[in-house]
Amino acid sequence: MPNPTAAMLVIGDEILSGRTRDANMHHLAGRLTEAGITLGEVRIVSDDHDAIVAAVRALSKAWDAVFTSGGIGPTHDDITADAIGAAFGVPVDVREDARALLAAHYERTGSDLNEARLRMARIPEGATLIDNPVSVAPGFTIGNVHVMAGVPSVFQAMVASVLPTLTGGVALISTSTRIDRAEGDIAGPLGALAKEFRDLSIGSYPFQKDGRFGSNVVIRGQDKARVEAATARLAEML
Amino acid sequence: MPNPTAAMLVIGDEILSGRTRDANMHHLAGRLTEAGITLGEVRIVSDDHDAIVAAVRALSKAWDAVFTSGGIGPTHDDITADAIGAAFGVPVDVREDARALLAAHYERTGSDLNEARLRMARIPEGATLIDNPVSVAPGFTIGNVHVMAGVPSVFQAMVASVLPTLTGGVALISTSTRIDRAEGDIAGPLGALAKEFRDLSIGSYPFQKDGRFGSNVVIRGQDKARVEAATARLAEML
Repeated sequence: MPNPTAAMLVIGDEILSGRTRDANMHHLAGRLTEAGITLGEVRIVSDDHDAIVAAVRALSKAWDAVFTSGGIGPTHDDITADAIGAAFGVPVDVREDARALLAAHYERTGSDLNEARLRMARIPEGATLIDNPVSVAPGFTIGNVHVMAGVPSVFQAMVASVLPTLTGGVALISTSTRIDRAEGDIAGPLGALAKEFRDLSIGSYPFQKDGRFGSNVVIRGQDKARVEAATARLAEML
Repeated sequence: MPNPTAAMLVIGDEILSGRTRDANMHHLAGRLTEAGITLGEVRIVSDDHDAIVAAVRALSKAWDAVFTSGGIGPTHDDITADAIGAAFGVPVDVREDARALLAAHYERTGSDLNEARLRMARIPEGATLIDNPVSVAPGFTIGNVHVMAGVPSVFQAMVASVLPTLTGGVALISTSTRIDRAEGDIAGPLGALAKEFRDLSIGSYPFQKDGRFGSNVVIRGQDKARVEAATARLAEML
């Protein structure tokens, strides 16, 4: 049976302007692979209502699960909750359980639960909350979409909260073989190997180091014996 | 006049599996911002023909220019040229000028221009070549789509080849102000600032450091005096 699939939507002008280098995508990709869930697509869009709505709809339809990051804080450019509500056609309002979480947290820390912070309790109707052990303001899940914060420490905590609730597949086994020859010299044998082991994914990832070209050949599959057999054949061939 | 826009399409299973952390997106984002071109969307798809075709068509239609990275090497998993040909409805074949570049290069380096390497001379009909000073095998431009290699050193060289051929806009001026207060405390004043300076983009990018929350407030615009005025107002407010 094929593994469940997922997509990610990164929301944030700061990634697209080159100001910030995204860290959340790489983190999520690794966690999903460990869980036996195939990350099939990532999109990065700006803090734009229509762009977020269109991307959420397209990804939610095409993949088993969608993870978003960014845009759920208290400032004027945090518009993700409203866009998700629009994508699902449901109203978004302050919800009592989310407000209670925030009220208790800010009372404890001596901060004010002002109007801006209260925005973080605005949750689309019908969503369930995602626990945020780092800074309390919750993420939420609606349909197959998991909406999480952009700050990496909070994003990672929310991923850890959500992943155990998902049904994963069989974790992929992989081997990586470094070959210090140009891809053009190994492409023929690699193509033959890929034909022989059609049940596996065989990828060639070229690199350049100290002016010389080489490639890491990664062999992935669900069956350990098959992956090992293909890796042994690769070693024989090259 | 608004700046020209662009999108990027990253092609590669290795990014989606978490094996490799993409570096090309961050590089391109920075170069485009310097050139006054707005990067509006990024998509990452796997080495899958239909996924590449669909993404190229959607992005090419929605944005002024599209930059792709990955999948133009000599191995069996390098399928980008064929997918681009399919997206534009044109045939893809070995082209004499690209073959000549490769032949001269491999003769010089004492390598064999074998069948696998010849794949790198397969160019969609009507495309123009993108110079590759690092490893010779060219990228290509067809319509508004610039097709480039995934190896970062080669990708960067190709970006440097392409960018001077594009018409850029006015480079954005930006200031960044670090505020060591939680976003919830500054969200009210920031919203008021954004309303006062509607011609500017004002973003709040929260961070967590040593257990405390803060935010970098970035103010961007084309008019230096306006950006400076907003930055001064921000300092007064907070």
